[in-house]
Amino acid sequence: MNSILYIEDMEKWRSGFTFFTPIKVRFSETDMFGHVNNVSSFIYFEEARIEFLKSVGLFDDANSKNGIPIVADLQCDYHKQIFFEDDLRLFVKVSHVGNSSFDLHYMALNQNEDMCLTGRGRIVYIHPETGNSVPLSETMKEKLITA
Amino acid sequence: MNSILYIEDMEKWRSGFTFFTPIKVRFSETDMFGHVNNVSSFIYFEEARIEFLKSVGLFDDANSKNGIPIVADLQCDYHKQIFFEDDLRLFVKVSHVGNSSFDLHYMALNQNEDMCLTGRGRIVYIHPETGNSVPLSETMKEKLITA
Amino acid sequence: MNSILYIEDMEKWRSGFTFFTPIKVRFSETDMFGHVNNVSSFIYFEEARIEFLKSVGLFDDANSKNGIPIVADLQCDYHKQIFFEDDLRLFVKVSHVGNSSFDLHYMALNQNEDMCLTGRGRIVYIHPETGNSVPLSETMKEKLITA
Amino acid sequence: MNSILYIEDMEKWRSGFTFFTPIKVRFSETDMFGHVNNVSSFIYFEEARIEFLKSVGLFDDANSKNGIPIVADLQCDYHKQIFFEDDLRLFVKVSHVGNSSFDLHYMALNQNEDMCLTGRGRIVYIHPETGNSVPLSETMKEKLITA
Repeated sequence: MNSILYIEDMEKWRSGFTFFTPIKVRFSETDMFGHVNNVSSFIYFEEARIEFLKSVGLFDDANSKNGIPIVADLQCDYHKQIFFEDDLRLFVKVSHVGNSSFDLHYMALNQNEDMCLTGRGRIVYIHPETGNSVPLSETMKEKLITA
Repeated sequence: MNSILYIEDMEKWRSGFTFFTPIKVRFSETDMFGHVNNVSSFIYFEEARIEFLKSVGLFDDANSKNGIPIVADLQCDYHKQIFFEDDLRLFVKVSHVGNSSFDLHYMALNQNEDMCLTGRGRIVYIHPETGNSVPLSETMKEKLITA
Repeated sequence: MNSILYIEDMEKWRSGFTFFTPIKVRFSETDMFGHVNNVSSFIYFEEARIEFLKSVGLFDDANSKNGIPIVADLQCDYHKQIFFEDDLRLFVKVSHVGNSSFDLHYMALNQNEDMCLTGRGRIVYIHPETGNSVPLSETMKEKLITA
Repeated sequence: MNSILYIEDMEKWRSGFTFFTPIKVRFSETDMFGHVNNVSSFIYFEEARIEFLKSVGLFDDANSKNGIPIVADLQCDYHKQIFFEDDLRLFVKVSHVGNSSFDLHYMALNQNEDMCLTGRGRIVYIHPETGNSVPLSETMKEKLITA
């Protein structure tokens, strides 16, 4: 594995997660190489991201007129192949909160506690009609920082 | 192959198609059994259905306030496995036009003219807000019957 | 709703299910019409089908050299739109066991016990190398009939 | 847009692409926010990556016993929303060739030449049975460097 820019100290980084959601690997998410296709990891990141946002009360806001959460960028490092019957836990944590965006970090562990995926991505809130970015309210920032 | 209720005479049925759209099989649409996953056929049906509706001028209508085309039912018979690098042509034809719905038939051939998939499904137009079915206009019916 | 050929008496048909698996609707399974895309129902059928086959001890067999379960046909009737945060239960039952194939029936209920989807499909076991169909063993038939 | 680490000089970076493949946006790849879902960009990257590898004669090698191309990491920056009827061209270029891996860069333009997506990712060849990485042959390296 080459160095991953969003992880300074792997042990510290790994231990910083508390929230996770179990992920059901679907058969249709495998590919002809016999394992879970690389695209599927972003399906799992999205599922975990939304569960995380719900858990901190930020997904209802998302449905409001004030802004919807949009993915500004995403990245994933594939550490270990995932197979059909693996039991995954997808961990999510906030790594940085800005004025109109925040960064989330992701980690997927399988049933043997092997790290299969790590990743990160920035979320921006945009106005559903104009598409312009919307500043995070102080309430939202607080929810994210204390998450 | 067991008898397929929507096909009375296979030769006649097959020769009734003229419209088709080429389908690009994506790697992520294969599965660990080494072939294209059964779910993917409905992705292809949808792509071909929309291309067909566009070709008869019924997909712009769909974007209007008058109604959006909704799938009421769908079925697919799998005649021959599809593999990653197959070149598919997905044929579509109208089989029946009712008052507020119509039936489409589907057929996928590979590069060897092998019939890989056949299928059918009913489309209903519904009001985007109320969800109620909307009768087909005479213009729409005519477009479908002469398609 | 038009009559559905695989359902004679709806009340009786519905009450014949006991096995179900909860389905997590993923955000990426919605589409721009605001609801769950029609293709996704077949993802759910597959997930439930495999859980059902596991529950009767027929998915391990599937991994063996003796045969892998292949979908011969599939159909789905869409009774009610499914939305992102719906809690689905996907029921599966055996409806017919033949010599080298069997039929499964499917039903999806949401959190209000509304029937969103019904469906059916035939499964055939084929030899993983030759692609030829493989007769069901007496053990397999018994597992299916008593399921 | 914040600075993107894999792009030093945007004009120079953009002009470095020559290979592209047209991408068909599928209806099922949109989501309830009305645009193409973030996951879909990685479907498009994969489609373009394989077309690129075929174009330089490295996808047949992939099917051989010598190694299959595996994604080691992937990232995507979302510059502009993609909509259902957009015509995308997905550009791919080699950015770095190592001993057992290489980096590919990606760029998606829509019909107005707007940059919708940029991205990168490293590919490693692994042995299909052992999962160990396999060094790139001199022939492969040459094909990639002159691509």
